[in-house]
Amino acid sequence: MKKVLVFGSTGSIGRSSLDVIRKARADFKVLGLCVNRDIKNLKKQIEEFSPSYVCVVDSGCADKLAASLDKRIKLFRGESGLQEFSSLNSDISIMGISGISCLRPLLINLEHTARIALANKEAIVGAGSFVFMKAKKFGVEIIPVDSEINALFQLVNAIKDDFLKVYITASGGPLLNCKKKDLKDVGVKEVLLHPTWKMGRRITVDSATFVNKAFEVIEVNRFFRIPYERIGVLIHKESAIHALVELKDNNIFACFYPPDMKMPISFALYYPLRSNSLAEKGVRQNFSLSLEPFNYKKHPLFEMVLDAARKDDNSLAILNASDEVAINYFLAGKIKFTHIRKVMEYIFTHYPSQGLKKVEDVFYWDTWARKKTEEYIEKEVHSVLRTNN
Amino acid sequence: MKKVLVFGSTGSIGRSSLDVIRKARADFKVLGLCVNRDIKNLKKQIEEFSPSYVCVVDSGCADKLAASLDKRIKLFRGESGLQEFSSLNSDISIMGISGISCLRPLLINLEHTARIALANKEAIVGAGSFVFMKAKKFGVEIIPVDSEINALFQLVNAIKDDFLKVYITASGGPLLNCKKKDLKDVGVKEVLLHPTWKMGRRITVDSATFVNKAFEVIEVNRFFRIPYERIGVLIHKESAIHALVELKDNNIFACFYPPDMKMPISFALYYPLRSNSLAEKGVRQNFSLSLEPFNYKKHPLFEMVLDAARKDDNSLAILNASDEVAINYFLAGKIKFTHIRKVMEYIFTHYPSQGLKKVEDVFYWDTWARKKTEEYIEKEVHSVLRTNN
Repeated sequence: MKKVLVFGSTGSIGRSSLDVIRKARADFKVLGLCVNRDIKNLKKQIEEFSPSYVCVVDSGCADKLAASLDKRIKLFRGESGLQEFSSLNSDISIMGISGISCLRPLLINLEHTARIALANKEAIVGAGSFVFMKAKKFGVEIIPVDSEINALFQLVNAIKDDFLKVYITASGGPLLNCKKKDLKDVGVKEVLLHPTWKMGRRITVDSATFVNKAFEVIEVNRFFRIPYERIGVLIHKESAIHALVELKDNNIFACFYPPDMKMPISFALYYPLRSNSLAEKGVRQNFSLSLEPFNYKKHPLFEMVLDAARKDDNSLAILNASDEVAINYFLAGKIKFTHIRKVMEYIFTHYPSQGLKKVEDVFYWDTWARKKTEEYIEKEVHSVLRTNN
Repeated sequence: MKKVLVFGSTGSIGRSSLDVIRKARADFKVLGLCVNRDIKNLKKQIEEFSPSYVCVVDSGCADKLAASLDKRIKLFRGESGLQEFSSLNSDISIMGISGISCLRPLLINLEHTARIALANKEAIVGAGSFVFMKAKKFGVEIIPVDSEINALFQLVNAIKDDFLKVYITASGGPLLNCKKKDLKDVGVKEVLLHPTWKMGRRITVDSATFVNKAFEVIEVNRFFRIPYERIGVLIHKESAIHALVELKDNNIFACFYPPDMKMPISFALYYPLRSNSLAEKGVRQNFSLSLEPFNYKKHPLFEMVLDAARKDDNSLAILNASDEVAINYFLAGKIKFTHIRKVMEYIFTHYPSQGLKKVEDVFYWDTWARKKTEEYIEKEVHSVLRTNN
């Protein structure tokens, strides 16, 4: 029985992970659950999974939970509590914390686990080299849970041959067919209506701007050391095929599974085995599948993020932070959808390019970019950003 | 440099094989070319590929060729010549002879080659156990060239995990959308208009009746020892995906390549390596792909052939022969398309069920079925089969 820590247990990834574990109680024991603030759902999870440890990052929420918590369960609270929780020894840690705030617990946890099922993109995008260096040093397997990267992991593991190119698919997100001139009037609700995946809010907005797909291309590069020119994107509206590998003789292998995060999570928990605990009877439904070329030119933020990746400096950490801040303003109704791009373009043309020498530099530039982005939006929101474009 | 014998060199598989070899002269040397009657095209191939041996099965045609043949090339003629040709030592033999007449040269050649790239279905369907037993005894690799089986071979080789089920795809053939009541009026031209594959005449008719797909299911069973209940068929009009494997965790791997026999032939020649001699730049075209369930009930010949396969007696050898005879009558305009089914149903309900103890039994029942089928058609053609159903 493997001991599992679930970081972000009440979020989308955390809940799917517990759905998998619920059907596999003989294989996995939930050692610890960690949330930011959602103690209401955490309580239910504690009741069901009886962890030995819980962590609530928001201290106020932690205090509320403490009152009703079974005394046999150890509670960690606040940022320092998260660091202690991350130091617990586990067999597998599921990293479902979103955003760059995953990076610190991830780096600590790498010293205390055998495997990380990693759903977080930002830590890999902003600080991938530090993460993989540490994983190598401590002999930790990092299994990607992000569906496209997970599918590619499955393909690359199976196919030992050289390949010409790998492809990840993009559903196109909620705005695929939205005309450029209509983008400025797109509301929060429309952007959050992702056609195939139910995900967190930020990643859904990132899907609409294709920043998410650029992050995934970076993940592919970092996970598999595949050069950018050999990573393609295909528009695939149905989200059934997640990745394809084209071998040098033009044979193509594809990996399919339903758009349900339980699939890659189950894979990451059981790898190198496979479990039939989720198994359905087979290909029951019809598939109607399309694969279309991705029009890079229509998605300038995709290109911008990859330009940043090729620079190999502090710009990815900065763009990631800037994107998150801009999206929060958009979700709060304070800026328009098209302003996200304007904000990121401004930041990308006004940052001091520097290398990242140590992981602390990532946090430094993250903080710098958040402040700079907020200042820019607050300053411009009454002028440029308020104009009708 | 590998020495290659091409059996059926002027047929569809033979020509595609030589297309592959033409671009890979440094890797393969054409040792011998064998045809039934087409000396016109054989002459061109001799000029281009300078084989050391040629074989012309039709003696009259062989005589015609002899007059103009370079004296340094050894010519084999007739059935006995085919057997001598089959005894030449090669590194790879491409078996592009269609029909059960492939079986004898195949069985001889298994003693004299290291690998057979097998495009012929009938030998496997009618006498698979004899073929695989002999291949095992002589340590010969048989690599399937039939696209679905080849794709499955690629998948099964890559994926070491247990799987729930395998699927081969069917384009549906030329009559997929033809209504049942209209089938009786379908002409030869319509049946030969296959939507995605250019193939020989018999296999194209077999595609329309789904006998071809049943044969492929049998091939899957024989090649990979997969029980029939774990082999599925999916309708896939575009013929881009050839096979899928569903693992026990419901992940699905698929193998794609353009509907061009050069792809599986190149694979079979180079395996376990892969060649980029055919390589194009990547996924250039759009794919619009559909996968739909196969309606077994609509295709009674599919079920009948698989019933025969499950009986494990002489019925497959008989049905194969009967099918070929009926198709020849249909192609000659002497019976209607729907009569193919009537003929096969008659034979399948009027044959003496017996096991196949030795390979000669296959030939015996093949001959028996051809005679019986001809007699039935000739007798019934003026009465039952001429009626309008």
